Amino acid sequence: MAEMKFKRSERLIDMTHYLMEHPRELVSLTFFADRFQSAKSSISEDLVIVKETFEHRGVGTLQTIPGAAGGVKYIPGIQRKQAEELIASLREHVSHSDRLLPGGYLYMTDILGDIHLMNHVGKLFAAAFANKEIDFIMTVATKGIGIAHAAARYLGVPVVVVRRDSKVTEGSTVSINYVSGSSRRIQTMVLSKRSLPQGARVLIVDDFMKAGGTAAGMKNLLEEFSATVAGTAILIESDHVEERLVEQYTSLLKLSNVDEREKTIQVTTGNYFDQVYSFLPEIE
Amino acid sequence: MAEMKFKRSERLIDMTHYLMEHPRELVSLTFFADRFQSAKSSISEDLVIVKETFEHRGVGTLQTIPGAAGGVKYIPGIQRKQAEELIASLREHVSHSDRLLPGGYLYMTDILGDIHLMNHVGKLFAAAFANKEIDFIMTVATKGIGIAHAAARYLGVPVVVVRRDSKVTEGSTVSINYVSGSSRRIQTMVLSKRSLPQGARVLIVDDFMKAGGTAAGMKNLLEEFSATVAGTAILIESDHVEERLVEQYTSLLKLSNVDEREKTIQVTTGNYFDQVYSFLPEIE
Repeated sequence: MAEMKFKRSERLIDMTHYLMEHPRELVSLTFFADRFQSAKSSISEDLVIVKETFEHRGVGTLQTIPGAAGGVKYIPGIQRKQAEELIASLREHVSHSDRLLPGGYLYMTDILGDIHLMNHVGKLFAAAFANKEIDFIMTVATKGIGIAHAAARYLGVPVVVVRRDSKVTEGSTVSINYVSGSSRRIQTMVLSKRSLPQGARVLIVDDFMKAGGTAAGMKNLLEEFSATVAGTAILIESDHVEERLVEQYTSLLKLSNVDEREKTIQVTTGNYFDQVYSFLPEIE
Repeated sequence: MAEMKFKRSERLIDMTHYLMEHPRELVSLTFFADRFQSAKSSISEDLVIVKETFEHRGVGTLQTIPGAAGGVKYIPGIQRKQAEELIASLREHVSHSDRLLPGGYLYMTDILGDIHLMNHVGKLFAAAFANKEIDFIMTVATKGIGIAHAAARYLGVPVVVVRRDSKVTEGSTVSINYVSGSSRRIQTMVLSKRSLPQGARVLIVDDFMKAGGTAAGMKNLLEEFSATVAGTAILIESDHVEERLVEQYTSLLKLSNVDEREKTIQVTTGNYFDQVYSFLPEIE
């Protein structure tokens, strides 16, 4: 088997695997040259093939950073048509009327635990924020955690989880009070003091947004850490709202016309496509 | 670009990507033959190369299922040496004495949010349970969720999250009381009724285990669903325990000798290597 190490086919397979496991991470040509005991010129040729295939297949692109400290970064991406298909499939999953719970709530637990759907959500968010500098993903316990980890997987950054209550295992914490937008109740949010460094750029992620009180609360909490919001990504927004507490956000789906008596809901595409992304070119 | 579609190099890169995104899922040769407009014989040759490379690089293997309903499955795996290295690196992360909190608790929030470390944990658990039939991964909110999603990513199954309290968004629920092993307190566990089908085989996952009360509680809860425990996977077990409530489990790390006054902790390898796994062959 040892003599196989140097073949292009093995290099391409292993490079693909390695890059997928290290999204948005700078990998030097020297690293691959050592790994495969190959000349940098061969590695460069390999990377061109990987880049073209990733773009052609709509799974992302490779960014080349020139110079001595340079290398390549795998930037997960998506074609517009694929993004439309993934959101349509999510919409179909969410639209079933048997999701409607007393009080007009939606049962979403199965969707938030479905690793394939979560991967789709992660990919869509990673594509939407591909050009943003992001250091951390933040969400609030419990339901946003799966989405946050899915996005983290494609953005290659850590997750911090805000809690409603302080726990002994969090060490010292920073807590804020905020007003829940829809119920107007005062609520508390707690984040471990050492979980975020000063000045971090943070992508806020959540499963559901009504008036946006929770997202606005997370923004306030970030200010306590001198951190900034790099974006806000929501799986489902509800349109039953007069005033939003968050102005800029990206949503995949929009929930409207919840009729508890008739047991019907209407789910449409969120504002995802209102923004301009650098979608990958379609296969001709 | 269209004429590139049929080249072996592109097929290998795209197959690698596809298989990695669909672990333990049966993919028919016809699927790949259609995807690449190639003969099944070429696809078979490609898959042999992918399989050899995956095994050689220690990232898993391809299982071939013969016959008309057959195809290939990507089974994530690991070499023993790699597993030792990953666990050693985890141990180093956990061992820092500044993790020690008042009461002898460990600060683990950063580790549980570190997507690279979580991927390692997921890989290790997936390798340990590679030969088990698993339909679901179950954990308890909040801290186990990241680990559960990491394992789910490599095992290709959904995650269900047990809660301490019932929430309106869960619909009707099943709840049990159990005795926390270390504090001897009565606690409650709640799981949404529709989150698990009858007879599911479930891998229990958690970040920490002392006496095993929580894991034993999850087992009791599973009985209410006529579901069975396929395994119990723990990131860190504590050895300060006289009687364990869970007999069979797999742990990556073991915490011992917590000295609050001297601010020292001792972290060793858990029982991971006590069991016999089908580790991939090492690169010679």
